[in-house]
Amino acid sequence: MAAADYFAKHKETLSTALETIASRGFWSPYPERASGSIYGESAADEGEVAFKARLGKPFELSGHPGDGYLETGETSPYGLELGVTYPKLSAAEAIAAAKSGMKAWRDAGVEARAGVCLEALARINARSFEMAHAVMHTTGQAFLMAFQAGGTHAQDRGLEAVTYAYREMTSVPAVARWEKPQGKNPPLVMDKHFNVAPRGVAAMIGVSTFPTWNGYPGLFASLVTGNPVVVKPHPMTVLPLAISVEIVRDVLAECGFDPNLVTLLTDRRDAPVAKELCTDPAVGIVDFTGSNAFGEWLERNCPQAQVYTEKAGVNALVIDDFADVKGMARNLSFTLSLYSGQMCTTPQNIFVPKDGIQAGDQRLSFDEVAETLAGALEKFLSDDERAWGVLGAIQAPETAQRIEQAAQMGEVVLDSRAITHQAWPDARIRTPIMLKIDGSERDKYESELFGPISFVVACEDIDDALEKWRETVARKGAITAGVYSDRAETLKKAEEVAQEVGVALSVNLTGGVFVNQTAAFSDFHATGANPAANAALVDSAFVANRFRMVEIRYPVAAEG
Amino acid sequence: MAAADYFAKHKETLSTALETIASRGFWSPYPERASGSIYGESAADEGEVAFKARLGKPFELSGHPGDGYLETGETSPYGLELGVTYPKLSAAEAIAAAKSGMKAWRDAGVEARAGVCLEALARINARSFEMAHAVMHTTGQAFLMAFQAGGTHAQDRGLEAVTYAYREMTSVPAVARWEKPQGKNPPLVMDKHFNVAPRGVAAMIGVSTFPTWNGYPGLFASLVTGNPVVVKPHPMTVLPLAISVEIVRDVLAECGFDPNLVTLLTDRRDAPVAKELCTDPAVGIVDFTGSNAFGEWLERNCPQAQVYTEKAGVNALVIDDFADVKGMARNLSFTLSLYSGQMCTTPQNIFVPKDGIQAGDQRLSFDEVAETLAGALEKFLSDDERAWGVLGAIQAPETAQRIEQAAQMGEVVLDSRAITHQAWPDARIRTPIMLKIDGSERDKYESELFGPISFVVACEDIDDALEKWRETVARKGAITAGVYSDRAETLKKAEEVAQEVGVALSVNLTGGVFVNQTAAFSDFHATGANPAANAALVDSAFVANRFRMVEIRYPVAAEG
Repeated sequence: MAAADYFAKHKETLSTALETIASRGFWSPYPERASGSIYGESAADEGEVAFKARLGKPFELSGHPGDGYLETGETSPYGLELGVTYPKLSAAEAIAAAKSGMKAWRDAGVEARAGVCLEALARINARSFEMAHAVMHTTGQAFLMAFQAGGTHAQDRGLEAVTYAYREMTSVPAVARWEKPQGKNPPLVMDKHFNVAPRGVAAMIGVSTFPTWNGYPGLFASLVTGNPVVVKPHPMTVLPLAISVEIVRDVLAECGFDPNLVTLLTDRRDAPVAKELCTDPAVGIVDFTGSNAFGEWLERNCPQAQVYTEKAGVNALVIDDFADVKGMARNLSFTLSLYSGQMCTTPQNIFVPKDGIQAGDQRLSFDEVAETLAGALEKFLSDDERAWGVLGAIQAPETAQRIEQAAQMGEVVLDSRAITHQAWPDARIRTPIMLKIDGSERDKYESELFGPISFVVACEDIDDALEKWRETVARKGAITAGVYSDRAETLKKAEEVAQEVGVALSVNLTGGVFVNQTAAFSDFHATGANPAANAALVDSAFVANRFRMVEIRYPVAAEG
Repeated sequence: MAAADYFAKHKETLSTALETIASRGFWSPYPERASGSIYGESAADEGEVAFKARLGKPFELSGHPGDGYLETGETSPYGLELGVTYPKLSAAEAIAAAKSGMKAWRDAGVEARAGVCLEALARINARSFEMAHAVMHTTGQAFLMAFQAGGTHAQDRGLEAVTYAYREMTSVPAVARWEKPQGKNPPLVMDKHFNVAPRGVAAMIGVSTFPTWNGYPGLFASLVTGNPVVVKPHPMTVLPLAISVEIVRDVLAECGFDPNLVTLLTDRRDAPVAKELCTDPAVGIVDFTGSNAFGEWLERNCPQAQVYTEKAGVNALVIDDFADVKGMARNLSFTLSLYSGQMCTTPQNIFVPKDGIQAGDQRLSFDEVAETLAGALEKFLSDDERAWGVLGAIQAPETAQRIEQAAQMGEVVLDSRAITHQAWPDARIRTPIMLKIDGSERDKYESELFGPISFVVACEDIDDALEKWRETVARKGAITAGVYSDRAETLKKAEEVAQEVGVALSVNLTGGVFVNQTAAFSDFHATGANPAANAALVDSAFVANRFRMVEIRYPVAAEG
């Protein structure tokens, strides 16, 4: 099929997406239920077979630049032998290949490019089972989470990026007639053509934990606005992005475009290539998710490019007087357990007044608050099978070490334990550790301790708790924040802090919505307003500067 | 009146502006005719009186921070003694004062802020005669041009910025309900509040030649999105921005806001303050118009801020076979004369095939093309009164020197001459100089020679002319470009060059539209896609990152 046909095929999806980013209600075209009744009864088996067929061999991409294959060091946190190698090429080769199809891609126009991106997303969706295995065995996410966060929710974010970019590119008409009255003389008349011009080659630098969810927005936003994309995954988490690249390339080639508009550039941790890639004069866009240190380096050292970063921060919860302590503890048990706290949205610090809180008609001391949270968490994870289905595995050995070291940092309220997975005996699975520390120990709670590590911090009172939260966000950044309070005054103060330091705030979550989850088309992920990120997924600012408008104007001879 | 009332008062204007940025037809709410029938029969006299009343004394701004008054070195290119001094303060004092009203300004909301900005623009419009004198006697623009480019057209650009920002801020609803089905269970329901959060203090760095036209977009875009603005004019061109600041402060104060949300920070050329201002950690936005060197310095050295730059480039025309040589020469006579070429949009290089062009049934040699252009220009400026009405005066003594030095750079086709203004005998008035150079003299045509200096460059053929144009834009940047050709093939190639290097292109202008003029709401000024500017006036990318959305979400108890 041609790109225009794919645009027609997916037009309704795009149209609903356009409505939803404006109304910000719930919607997703990619069902999150990993069910045969939705994806086909054979889809689960086929996905597993397809994943297994990738293992122990080179990942071949037809027509892709490079010479030979690279072993990146990718390993499964579940202990499965992966053994996939990837095309071996230099940043310069990737960039050169990317540039060759750029003009035809630009000239194809908005609808053709959107058609290709929408079809690629639909095909990625159809392969969500295969993707779930690939995400699970690289990031360590449990299978169902990998299906959702690595599959359908990532597809949502990709579609959201295409939608915002489409809206932005079409907010100016392709041609406009301008007619300026000249009193008694004939008017001045001009025809003005507005052309979308890409910025250059885009570099998408993937993260080890959410390669697709954090990667698709930049990948698809850059591609649909006319820029070729070099995808540079984290060396430990290549496969999900490699499969994605393969699918996009297939659609590009089928529609008559150069598949090298999207290439895969891999590296090893001992020979990283991202700096060379991102500082190349041909690179006009960089999307990055990862460490603060490298994110800030990119922000400061790529003046030739528009740089979008999602880094890390220190997320917090503030707990004030709150009656439904049970609901809170239940909600936070899931929140703190999900993917073993390896989300950039997981809370680390729980600020609680040292004199405790009023829980309805019951008084809970500071220690009792900590014990309530720890107890609920322990109970939630008491069944191993349920536990590993939420926890998944620890992606990096460094995170497992960090959990062990954390035990020295305060009084342990709940210790971490290793769990043995039935199917994957070598899986690196750890339950969360929770500690109590004093509000004076700022050096501890202001350090980001990535993984399932949380501090219950004793504060002077609720105002001090809010202030400590405010200070950590202002200084260290945060992607999320949560507050629990029955008092309107506290909520008002919390809203003010959230707005002042620019962090998204979830209030009194006790049900099935969690502070560390955001829904595409409705919630923004990160604000771009504090040190944790300079951009949000996804808003106009994320797309509007990925292209520039080039106007060409012609005079029109006056009629009559 | 309250801000909400001003919003209601100007709502229709905003509504038409919103329609026009989408349709990009002709429209302006600020009449460009300096006529008593529009502005009131006494407006011209009152404007002159108001301007004269400013001279020879301190410019007082009630409640403004600072101690004493600064003599900035501002002088009139017409020789009028100005003698205005301005509040003397440090960058730190301006920033401190700016911050104090920030929270109330943020909390006032989009409509209140838009109301203040729209009323300020309307009041600035009503004072267009006063502004015309202030612009004329600082920039050197002729009075009528000062009325339009410094007055009404600048107001258009300011309104355009408010309009884009308003559209962007309201593209997300203030509150949205999200309802996610849960099969047989009750749905998850959340109320989500989306709050516009400012980025920080905005620094607006003014330029000597178009203080209001280039300044209002950043000033109003930052202000309406919730950021206080420190206006730092060029020390030689303070008065137009000082008057603008005064008007905005009046409206702010009248509506109950802190007038120090907009302050005036002046400096002298021997003690510049812009670096200190723009690198302050509290500064979140920088708007700059001026030199490439300082613009690039700002782009690289203010990582804490979003930096928008309009710098300089080397604009060009390409002349191919073209029948209406007379129309072209007439059009270019005005183009090259207007404000003595002191526009960042004035062409400098005129690339012509060395074997000449076919002008209908007539063959014109390269020399004849140059002579035709020079002859038309000479004739156009032969009447002194008409000449100075278009040329205005030379803003900076350095520009007058540059004209003299340019005479050594090639074969002079038309020399510059000084003209004596009847009313202003000391005015620094110079007609354009035009030279012929060879295509091999790249070092000459690739240097930006600001002022009324143009080169007719002998190229191998039309493809070489297009290639030389392409190279200069890619290497040095350009704000505008023009091509004259009767051949579809050449126009196609020219369009391709324009898109590839990202420069706005005007084709075959022979009437009343000029390559160096753009109309707000319809034309983009600069593309942001080549080294001459990293932003365009005005598009979504210019406004979308001046604020961030802070989401606050609450669960809603399931009904029933």
